[in-house]
Amino acid sequence: MASSPAPVSSAGIGLVGFDADDTLWRSEDYFVAAQSAFERIVGEYIDLDDARARQRLLAIEKSNLALFGYGVKGMALSMIEAAVDITGQRIDARHVHEIVSIAKDMLRHPVELLPGIREAVDAIAADYAIVLITKGDLFHQEAKVRQSGLADLFGRIEIVSEKDDATYHRVLKEFQLLPERFCMIGNSLRSDIAPVLRLGGWAVHMPYALTWAHELDAEIAPASRRRLREVDAPHALPDAVAALQRLARGQEGGTPMGGDEAAETP
Amino acid sequence: MASSPAPVSSAGIGLVGFDADDTLWRSEDYFVAAQSAFERIVGEYIDLDDARARQRLLAIEKSNLALFGYGVKGMALSMIEAAVDITGQRIDARHVHEIVSIAKDMLRHPVELLPGIREAVDAIAADYAIVLITKGDLFHQEAKVRQSGLADLFGRIEIVSEKDDATYHRVLKEFQLLPERFCMIGNSLRSDIAPVLRLGGWAVHMPYALTWAHELDAEIAPASRRRLREVDAPHALPDAVAALQRLARGQEGGTPMGGDEAAETP
Repeated sequence: MASSPAPVSSAGIGLVGFDADDTLWRSEDYFVAAQSAFERIVGEYIDLDDARARQRLLAIEKSNLALFGYGVKGMALSMIEAAVDITGQRIDARHVHEIVSIAKDMLRHPVELLPGIREAVDAIAADYAIVLITKGDLFHQEAKVRQSGLADLFGRIEIVSEKDDATYHRVLKEFQLLPERFCMIGNSLRSDIAPVLRLGGWAVHMPYALTWAHELDAEIAPASRRRLREVDAPHALPDAVAALQRLARGQEGGTPMGGDEAAETP
Repeated sequence: MASSPAPVSSAGIGLVGFDADDTLWRSEDYFVAAQSAFERIVGEYIDLDDARARQRLLAIEKSNLALFGYGVKGMALSMIEAAVDITGQRIDARHVHEIVSIAKDMLRHPVELLPGIREAVDAIAADYAIVLITKGDLFHQEAKVRQSGLADLFGRIEIVSEKDDATYHRVLKEFQLLPERFCMIGNSLRSDIAPVLRLGGWAVHMPYALTWAHELDAEIAPASRRRLREVDAPHALPDAVAALQRLARGQEGGTPMGGDEAAETP
């Protein structure tokens, strides 16, 4: 036990949230590969170097996002619609079937954990209650959580349709936890980091090699930057959370935290 | 106030769950209409009176359900795959686009509340904490809840991928509520009624005119039938819940409950 005064039990970070796609396991790689496969297919009909064709494709994808939401199934329907449209209804049934197969392959793809993430989640789970907060298709996300072998570590798994301020507010209310006691870990500034910082929480940003342009669109207020850490790989996550915990408990510059840093269940 | 002894405050039903599709609002109608539209399209290529073609169609839909889950997007992808398959890759791009349009129309369709359901939910919410527990596509279900105008009445909204014993067990654990204090209302014996009765809870079955064959497959143990009521329309729901509450509190045959039946938040 540390000889310094015991921290007030209600102070500091009491719950750590993890994003899933591209934080625990690879995901964006498959979307990028799917987009390439799709472009190879429609490239048999039209010249995708033509800026107008590409713009048309992006416009259909963007307008469908509001109707279909995120995820593989919406992506596939959007691709099929775009393929019919930009080929002038010339696309062959066999190519339509290839697009459905792209989606089915993605849904069936085994979960590939990022190197070192299991150890990092284990280490953080030893000291904190942890939850998984992920966006996307409910059915597919649940399947990935099951396959990941990490499900038992998480006290709760929240699959949400959008990760914005309102969603984190609702989820933290359900956890009966104040935002200043919550730390979120994820690869997306827009979905994992910015909303939690805006609510007054803590965050660890772990960028992924590939990031969907949509997820980079976020501003971090200078005043909230002290509640943010950035790491380049999973092995650095436990130390980053510990550093934020010292700040949260007003122990910055104090002795490193020992075993008394154990989680208080919210 | 009733003159009978006050019920023990921790006894009886403390939370009422509502299913959404075909309990609060119409849903199966649209799936039936979509299936008809789809059969009209593929009927231009093949004879659907041919039992083999129809069997092939059902086999593809069934095998895809495990991969795509429930919901409009999975239905549409499955229809597209089936259309390519059973037409021997002859289906025209314009017909593929029609199938995508069927899905988009369903996703955009305004929510149509069942007659009398708003009043029934209002009446039950006056006496109990209520939650919404629905299955299907997260994005579409959230949109329907928002549009329904009922969202504010529900203390919580749970969108799940499957409504089985394990799901109800998890959800009730999150609500910190014993199953014997929970009553579920819904149209599906398989998804709303049977699992809750198996866990020891209470249930009100309100059949819908159209029920997906998949949802009729349920056995109700004779011993649990006393914890089940069946009603034919929303206006009968509040009385059915009140009757179960009297049983739950061991007041069967006693005076009707008055205002002291108010909800205890779990």
